[in-house]
Amino acid sequence: MERLPTVLDVGRVAGVSRQTVSNVLNSPEVVRPDTRARVEAAIAELGYRPHASARRLRTRRSSTIGIRLDPMANGISGSVHDRFLHSLTEQADSFGLRIMLFTALDPQDEIRQIRRMHEGSDVDAFVLTSTMFGDPRTEWLVEHGIPFVTFGRPWGIDDMNDPLHRWVDVDGHTGLRLATAHLLAEGERRIAYLGWPSPSGTGDDRRRGWRDEMERASGLSREELDRLDLRVDDGVAEGRETVREAIERGSRFDAIVCASDSLALGALLMVGPDIPVIGYDNTPVAQAVGMSSVEQPLDEVASGVLALIMRPEADVDDIGHRLIEPRLVIRHPRLRPELG
Amino acid sequence: MERLPTVLDVGRVAGVSRQTVSNVLNSPEVVRPDTRARVEAAIAELGYRPHASARRLRTRRSSTIGIRLDPMANGISGSVHDRFLHSLTEQADSFGLRIMLFTALDPQDEIRQIRRMHEGSDVDAFVLTSTMFGDPRTEWLVEHGIPFVTFGRPWGIDDMNDPLHRWVDVDGHTGLRLATAHLLAEGERRIAYLGWPSPSGTGDDRRRGWRDEMERASGLSREELDRLDLRVDDGVAEGRETVREAIERGSRFDAIVCASDSLALGALLMVGPDIPVIGYDNTPVAQAVGMSSVEQPLDEVASGVLALIMRPEADVDDIGHRLIEPRLVIRHPRLRPELG
Repeated sequence: MERLPTVLDVGRVAGVSRQTVSNVLNSPEVVRPDTRARVEAAIAELGYRPHASARRLRTRRSSTIGIRLDPMANGISGSVHDRFLHSLTEQADSFGLRIMLFTALDPQDEIRQIRRMHEGSDVDAFVLTSTMFGDPRTEWLVEHGIPFVTFGRPWGIDDMNDPLHRWVDVDGHTGLRLATAHLLAEGERRIAYLGWPSPSGTGDDRRRGWRDEMERASGLSREELDRLDLRVDDGVAEGRETVREAIERGSRFDAIVCASDSLALGALLMVGPDIPVIGYDNTPVAQAVGMSSVEQPLDEVASGVLALIMRPEADVDDIGHRLIEPRLVIRHPRLRPELG
Repeated sequence: MERLPTVLDVGRVAGVSRQTVSNVLNSPEVVRPDTRARVEAAIAELGYRPHASARRLRTRRSSTIGIRLDPMANGISGSVHDRFLHSLTEQADSFGLRIMLFTALDPQDEIRQIRRMHEGSDVDAFVLTSTMFGDPRTEWLVEHGIPFVTFGRPWGIDDMNDPLHRWVDVDGHTGLRLATAHLLAEGERRIAYLGWPSPSGTGDDRRRGWRDEMERASGLSREELDRLDLRVDDGVAEGRETVREAIERGSRFDAIVCASDSLALGALLMVGPDIPVIGYDNTPVAQAVGMSSVEQPLDEVASGVLALIMRPEADVDDIGHRLIEPRLVIRHPRLRPELG
């Protein structure tokens, strides 16, 4: 074959899954001896070398990381990606790494771009953002042995410890749990959640954080919590209208926690400063209007991503991911909605 | 000498200025024949080749542009740089160009980074932002014949048409003139300007736009205009306090035009929606709170920058810069300041 053998080829020859091959490579003690022997034979037969590119990365004098610049879909929440990029670029310098930017229309186009840059030896490793269920990009990168780290966990995959998929993420469940617990401690009880429709890896995780804390400590019934669970696509106008409709159909709530600052600003522009609203991402907008928000420590995300990119292959003692705790920033709004 | 001869070396040998050398190269008809002969002799003697790197850029299959990622000094206004970067990256792809990011502590450090990338042949041309009076970076790039284009005009230099300094900028004077004229047409008369202290190339240009329009059409005296000229460093809190102090010392105004959305939001949080406030940059914050603002057409800036980077050296008919008209976005604020 023209291309180098991949872990999928090894699996095919040995009659096992990619995960089993990866276990043989990284945690052989968990694999049955006869399976292990079969995989090792296939590795020898095909001449498979795990992550040849990763080794090349570490021997190059000056290396380059590729990252897709997310489209500016949402002016408020989009700034998270930009702030991550700032942290990544600043810290990359101290590792002797440079950042190459590119754009892509969709995941398939992103794969095409990655392939082109990798083949041209322009870029040694990739940082992927906005991971999704059944992500075709990570599957392809694993198969081609191209080093990568994702900001975002592998949603919908059982094995979060897959050594071939290194990732860094912020624990949104904990973020919403912290926000909800803070409001409960302040004496609020009927705390609504304003978030995105399911399924959404990130969104469902944040919703569960609110729900778990409410079930634990609010004393509200399941039915009451269902009514406080407001769902709409991201956006300021969307958040404002959804809260307005909930009020109009008689919902009462003492406070609102949100999946994003966009939704939170919409809620704030509806209910005003007397009902606490907590957003997510601690964007410049939240800081400017004095809105509480859950902050993603993007400096920590960037340093985690770089540490995992630079980590030697053989370092099996270190787990291949970092789940980072967000922190809650409490403020008091400096504005009232304009009536009418 | 070890390094390649530069236009400054040619000027030194011929006993003329850099500008004269550049005229001989680009518009020989404007140079006296004897001067021209002296410069041409110096060019031949030194073996000077204009913009060797630029020629290489056009012959390379895949080229790379370097750009410094501005530090995130200001969460609100900083988004302009990020939005420019998005436009640039998206459009660069259609030219077959890629974007390499780097960070720098100060202009001297930026020069060091540029030198390193240029010597390593990693990057073929550079885009500079945040031009300043006596900018050491552009002087250095011209001297070393490294292709570059600036987003921002060469402040404090008489010759805006220097063919060796290609630039794209947005006409802030026109932006503030448009904002002021709009408010005058709406019947407002005492329109204050909230901007940055002088000297600031960008800030002084915007202030003059307000002042020129007010002198033309408001009927207010010079002394009255002086009192309406409010100055403070950028920031939401700074804008709010400066407007508060002006009100406390008895200033009356019907409307406020500002040098930035940060200052404008501060003003809006002080005066509320009954006094029109117009910001500058049309940031996500302005969109979110319903604030009027002057928008910089960053897509046009990016396409101008790329066109100038790709332009053949010999194209002397085309001027080497683009001054782009901003546009005014009028909105009605959806918030009232929280009293107290």
